[in-house]
Amino acid sequence: MKNGKIRAAVVGYGNIGKYVLDTLESASDFEVAGMVRRKVSDIPNELKRYKVVTSVSELGQVDVAILCTPTRSVETYAKDCLQRGIHTVDSFDIHSKILDLKTSLDEIAKQHQSVSIISAGWDPGSDSIVRTLMEAMAPKGITYTNFGPGMSMGHTVAVKAIGGVKAALSMTIPAGTGIHRRMVYIELEQGADFDSVANAIKADDYFAHDETHVFQVQDVEALKDMGHGVSMERKGVSGNTQNQLFHYEMRINNPALTAQMLVCAARATFKQQPGAYTLIEVPVIDFLPGDKDEWIKKLV
Amino acid sequence: MKNGKIRAAVVGYGNIGKYVLDTLESASDFEVAGMVRRKVSDIPNELKRYKVVTSVSELGQVDVAILCTPTRSVETYAKDCLQRGIHTVDSFDIHSKILDLKTSLDEIAKQHQSVSIISAGWDPGSDSIVRTLMEAMAPKGITYTNFGPGMSMGHTVAVKAIGGVKAALSMTIPAGTGIHRRMVYIELEQGADFDSVANAIKADDYFAHDETHVFQVQDVEALKDMGHGVSMERKGVSGNTQNQLFHYEMRINNPALTAQMLVCAARATFKQQPGAYTLIEVPVIDFLPGDKDEWIKKLV
Repeated sequence: MKNGKIRAAVVGYGNIGKYVLDTLESASDFEVAGMVRRKVSDIPNELKRYKVVTSVSELGQVDVAILCTPTRSVETYAKDCLQRGIHTVDSFDIHSKILDLKTSLDEIAKQHQSVSIISAGWDPGSDSIVRTLMEAMAPKGITYTNFGPGMSMGHTVAVKAIGGVKAALSMTIPAGTGIHRRMVYIELEQGADFDSVANAIKADDYFAHDETHVFQVQDVEALKDMGHGVSMERKGVSGNTQNQLFHYEMRINNPALTAQMLVCAARATFKQQPGAYTLIEVPVIDFLPGDKDEWIKKLV
Repeated sequence: MKNGKIRAAVVGYGNIGKYVLDTLESASDFEVAGMVRRKVSDIPNELKRYKVVTSVSELGQVDVAILCTPTRSVETYAKDCLQRGIHTVDSFDIHSKILDLKTSLDEIAKQHQSVSIISAGWDPGSDSIVRTLMEAMAPKGITYTNFGPGMSMGHTVAVKAIGGVKAALSMTIPAGTGIHRRMVYIELEQGADFDSVANAIKADDYFAHDETHVFQVQDVEALKDMGHGVSMERKGVSGNTQNQLFHYEMRINNPALTAQMLVCAARATFKQQPGAYTLIEVPVIDFLPGDKDEWIKKLV
């Protein structure tokens, strides 16, 4: 902290990184310590007022690093920061590997008296909190999480990582009862073979379990809208009372909400004991700035 | 704990107490230590298999007391239990006095190494968690909480406490943007004056701030349905991105959900440091039984 403000480094400057910077600028309890990028050449104009470096160690005092890298790079960056005593937050989004990431970061965080809050976007993230609350309110029953229609950032990044893909957009289409169709639009690199690329996409762990359609287009940019949404339903039993009905829905700019949750989680790292946490292990009041009692009066 | 089960006392056996007993019976990590009532004469048949006493001290080992008394008696019962080292949960529902209750119980709980989770119904309660999360997701904006149509337990109890009222039902009708109408149906005691009673109801703190209509009826029981609901809306700004839309809705049996949340909170008392908490200060995972890692895998 410096002048009572949390000094945050933004690691990575893709879609999420851009919105995180916006969010930090609108949060009066934060100060931007600087940006960490793989390369410090070609710095966009809007970053010129910040320090842009290749390692968090070059930024002076950093209290928390907000990791906006691709999901698969999160663990490496998080370990590096946690070892330096810098808290981390990320929006790691491979659901099946969250517990492994937590276990791995928990050990390092405890060794170095730092805190990591992982998978702190909206799903996994804020949706996970609602899902957990629904489970608590009606312990018997089924919750369906229906995503979209909307662009999936994680899926789009996964497609871009596949050889032969020049540009990509992965749309998530809700088919009801938690079933989704993936509509993938790609531009190919010169000489790339569409069928091989399409098969590689369909074989990727992000897509292997869903109905996936791949289309080649001339211009992916023309299709892009970062709106997204979720509709979560639970019908269940409280005690032995049947037919308790719960519904949660949101329609949002996807990276803007991810960024907002990351910044909320960054704030919450200072209120936890050393270790790694998912959002459902953090009291929701810890996401908010300022005086707890005022929030209790307003929100409880 | 006894045989690995949490021993819970149920204090009060009105609507909420009945559903709490149901919920405890369906929760395999709990054991009913017994019931505390003002009088131990006229014990209903379904209670005959339990110890029914007038003080929690007569029940042997009690780990947590679930307070199902009228809201205005909560503080007295909670203090008594907390001083004995027994955790407490309640569904105290006068929003403007929650912070005072917390402050008062926090001190006693810390002195006696016990934990109290207060206002642990659905509003205040589970709704408070959603409201707090919405505030975190879009820090600028307005949240509207619209209740009903449904019977308000707290308001109905408040009417019953007024002199001259023999039986009562208070219905909450949503009028939009967080504004509500109260429709109150009463049977009068012999000789009571309707106008005086109606004015006393309208002057009560539960009703003084809303449009309230009072009707005399022959048979309140014939009107009763314990279904209730809420529709909560927030339109706000994440970072500097406008028009983020959130909606939460539930249609539920009211005392069944209150009871379920009380039992979830009772479970969570064992996972907090000594002191008093509202639900927004408790991680949602603490409401669930069993192994945390399994929930993280399933819900995050």
